[in-house]
Amino acid sequence: MPLKKYIRDIQDFPKPGIGFKDITPLLLNPIARKETLHLLISNLKDKQINKVIGVESRGFFFGILIAEELNAGFIPVRKPKKLPFDTISASYDLEYGTDTLEIHIDAIQKGDKVLIHDDVLATGGTAKAVCELVERLGGEIVQCNFLMELSFLNGREKIAGKPIFSAITY
Amino acid sequence: MPLKKYIRDIQDFPKPGIGFKDITPLLLNPIARKETLHLLISNLKDKQINKVIGVESRGFFFGILIAEELNAGFIPVRKPKKLPFDTISASYDLEYGTDTLEIHIDAIQKGDKVLIHDDVLATGGTAKAVCELVERLGGEIVQCNFLMELSFLNGREKIAGKPIFSAITY
Repeated sequence: MPLKKYIRDIQDFPKPGIGFKDITPLLLNPIARKETLHLLISNLKDKQINKVIGVESRGFFFGILIAEELNAGFIPVRKPKKLPFDTISASYDLEYGTDTLEIHIDAIQKGDKVLIHDDVLATGGTAKAVCELVERLGGEIVQCNFLMELSFLNGREKIAGKPIFSAITY
Repeated sequence: MPLKKYIRDIQDFPKPGIGFKDITPLLLNPIARKETLHLLISNLKDKQINKVIGVESRGFFFGILIAEELNAGFIPVRKPKKLPFDTISASYDLEYGTDTLEIHIDAIQKGDKVLIHDDVLATGGTAKAVCELVERLGGEIVQCNFLMELSFLNGREKIAGKPIFSAITY
């Protein structure tokens, strides 16, 4: 099944000049969604992953589906002030300014085998910040896992050394 | 299994005087999470539901898990300017001011059988706005489905006439 058929290109979103990949048609089609899920976990079953991170907020969708398939805990990594318990945070550069992500301090224990999932690997800034959070809590990053990779942005370079898997590449 | 054991009370979040129900321990425990999921779909299997809505953003977690279990499409209902395609919107009153939710106009077709899922039924304002969005697009609301219900806030009254199910009641 050509999964790209279920990714809709939206021009000038969220601002002029940006081309946005809209995954809502994929979420809406249960057959395409299930095939995507199977692709995302295709090489994970023997990896003893016990925690799956989904990055706010489009990373929540397949993140929690993967966690359920792997019978692993699910951890939301969120924007500041969204998580109610004690957190640690990591910041990363945007085109203009910086952004910050947080994780609950009790979400990961030393030695946990962690999968990081997000919807898009673009410049890699988000993924790098999440890797930092996991490692500060003592987790082992088994894979950085993405629904889509915008390969022309070279985000892989920012998380070099980590295993990376993307279901759909542009 | 006493599921309330996996809901953590956080005092004074997001602001002083508010007691927040933190569901992250439930998301982190795959056994409790699966039991919760089975409870949420326990009376839905013969209802021919073909679309499941998850309300931003904590409604995304169990919303998409329910959609996957029912082999139904998943629809995120989101805060303004988050959905990239054409939308309709509905507003609802908060303690101070109003808030707005949006849905993609192509997410629901006339006659669709729709489950609305959110993490909490509190005052019912959010649920009522989502019901309005579904009905304006011609969908039939099969059930309003919540992980938790704060029954002392009487949110049921705002969506009177709709079938309501809550997995955990306070």
